[in-house]
Amino acid sequence: MTIIPEQAAVLDLGLDAAELTARLVDIPSVSGDEKPIADAVERALRTLPHLTVDRYGNSVVARTFLGRAERVVLAGHLDTVPLADNLPSRLDEDGVLWGCGTSDMKSGVAVQLRIAATVPEPGRDLTFVFYEHEEAKAHLNGLGRIAEAHPDWLGCDFAVLLEPTGGQVEGGCQGILRVLLRTAGVRAHSARSWTGSNAIHAAAPVLARLATYRPRRPVIEGLEYHEGLNAVRIEGGVANNVVPDACTITVTFRYAPDRTPQDALAHVRETFADCGVEEITVGNAAAGALPGLSHPAAVAFMTAVGGTATAKLGWTDVARFSALGVPAVNYGPGDPLLAHKQDERVDTRLIAHCEDRLRAWLTRPAP
Amino acid sequence: MTIIPEQAAVLDLGLDAAELTARLVDIPSVSGDEKPIADAVERALRTLPHLTVDRYGNSVVARTFLGRAERVVLAGHLDTVPLADNLPSRLDEDGVLWGCGTSDMKSGVAVQLRIAATVPEPGRDLTFVFYEHEEAKAHLNGLGRIAEAHPDWLGCDFAVLLEPTGGQVEGGCQGILRVLLRTAGVRAHSARSWTGSNAIHAAAPVLARLATYRPRRPVIEGLEYHEGLNAVRIEGGVANNVVPDACTITVTFRYAPDRTPQDALAHVRETFADCGVEEITVGNAAAGALPGLSHPAAVAFMTAVGGTATAKLGWTDVARFSALGVPAVNYGPGDPLLAHKQDERVDTRLIAHCEDRLRAWLTRPAP
Repeated sequence: MTIIPEQAAVLDLGLDAAELTARLVDIPSVSGDEKPIADAVERALRTLPHLTVDRYGNSVVARTFLGRAERVVLAGHLDTVPLADNLPSRLDEDGVLWGCGTSDMKSGVAVQLRIAATVPEPGRDLTFVFYEHEEAKAHLNGLGRIAEAHPDWLGCDFAVLLEPTGGQVEGGCQGILRVLLRTAGVRAHSARSWTGSNAIHAAAPVLARLATYRPRRPVIEGLEYHEGLNAVRIEGGVANNVVPDACTITVTFRYAPDRTPQDALAHVRETFADCGVEEITVGNAAAGALPGLSHPAAVAFMTAVGGTATAKLGWTDVARFSALGVPAVNYGPGDPLLAHKQDERVDTRLIAHCEDRLRAWLTRPAP
Repeated sequence: MTIIPEQAAVLDLGLDAAELTARLVDIPSVSGDEKPIADAVERALRTLPHLTVDRYGNSVVARTFLGRAERVVLAGHLDTVPLADNLPSRLDEDGVLWGCGTSDMKSGVAVQLRIAATVPEPGRDLTFVFYEHEEAKAHLNGLGRIAEAHPDWLGCDFAVLLEPTGGQVEGGCQGILRVLLRTAGVRAHSARSWTGSNAIHAAAPVLARLATYRPRRPVIEGLEYHEGLNAVRIEGGVANNVVPDACTITVTFRYAPDRTPQDALAHVRETFADCGVEEITVGNAAAGALPGLSHPAAVAFMTAVGGTATAKLGWTDVARFSALGVPAVNYGPGDPLLAHKQDERVDTRLIAHCEDRLRAWLTRPAP
């Protein structure tokens, strides 16, 4: 016998998407604490007879098996960044819903749940993925862990990630390469500095190269990407009376998806080749994703949702689909500029609009 | 009634300077824990009838009052840097004494104590200063605190600081100016870095200026000083996905004693005038000291100890005497290159040599 605590959240999928967003926001789910919201989502999905529901950790996957020619994934994460005294949610008189996770991305999750509940006979088979640990440690990312343990759960022809895009389609994503550049020197007492060699001074050519770097803006499948090469951290120093023998500059390279991670690293090495860098080590590398907008399912999607696609400049989990060979786009009702902010909020009209557009796409017959 | 613990150290001033150094080294006295050694020094000095002994905190001052025409100070600090598993002391077969404080500067303190005990009728009145807190926080420095609370205790015509100089006379000292240079920027997500402005990149001109800076080597009263301008710390960065809006470079300027602290700051401001620095703040400023070797007491001292004076490049407490209008030199048996090191040691022959030279000077009749 399973005892369900009285206060366990019950999600009514008959609510409209804005109200459902508020219910989801009011179940706190900071990364690592997704169990209550995952339980609620799982329970709600299990009431829908047309879906087969699976669970892995605090991630939930629900699928139709209608024998359609194509399958699409609608994916979203359940977790949020830490609260900032911005719960419970609050709907203002302008129809704007305030609170942690409203934009990133419980409004997207609400749209997923609404589609799951209200489109029992979609033109394409559907897979809904609700996953944990997107905001914090990459190795715990629920989508990544499902891709490893149950790759078949993610099999599809096209994926939509409902991360906040303000209701615009954003194609693919840029890759990330983080490297540590270390300059070297020889320690000495600062009163006899000429007996040593200053590693912080040795970083001058690296910073000069960064300051004058001109990033590419390649157009790929009609979308303009915009690269960026930035020092995001610099650290050097031993003590106030010591000429330092080491200085480390952390550089983040955001690169367009026409480069592979290997290309990106080669470019970084070449860029700093004559800057006196002692050592380059890779701190983090995540491939980008090509937009894949020429895929038939993507074309149908674009026709249904309308508007013009733009390039996704930040890295998102679409790259995980890309790594599985699946074209994927970002499309969600949240505002990306409000993600992770104390005054995070979402325009509820945009939630309804996204739900509407996705339903229009998914209820249409497909090849 | 005062109860003296059985284990309280008793210093036998009849020991030779090398043995006395070992006894002093074996009384641990890391900055802040000088009481046991100060007690031992005070007790030993109070057995000498020709001296008047005063104490302030854990600093001890002992003076002759013989009505001589001149008075000289012999000064040394009682504290050491933290232990590094280098106690108790150990004398090897080559006559080298190993242990924390052997060079910096209990061998100098031993010489002071030996002179105090064995020169009851000096040609110049003598003041012995043994002080606390030289190695750590400057505001607790015993010499500085005596200069504030009991400046009369330090009144004299010439001072010798027995800091380690390898038995060579080092005149005056260079000043120190530490400044924080802050560059500014505008935060942005690193995926849209062109919407911000990178404060680490903005540090490039500062580091380039430091890397190409040519320090002066002025000759003052026959001694060649050697300035140095060095970044000793650099810090910048917010998070791996954020273009940083601030970067701080800590720069230490070691300057020759022909500049005042005001001159030094003006020079630093001018040096970085066109480097895009948002703000310069002064972290620490300590005036240098002119060598003062033309003073008659200094001439007599140089004649007695022999050798050629060189410029003191590091900052020492001679600057505190200089601030009181007293010429002062550094002259001690320790090896300055071994100070603060785990393998700190001192050649005991040099201790005896210094004691010998100082006795030769001080037993001579003076004007």
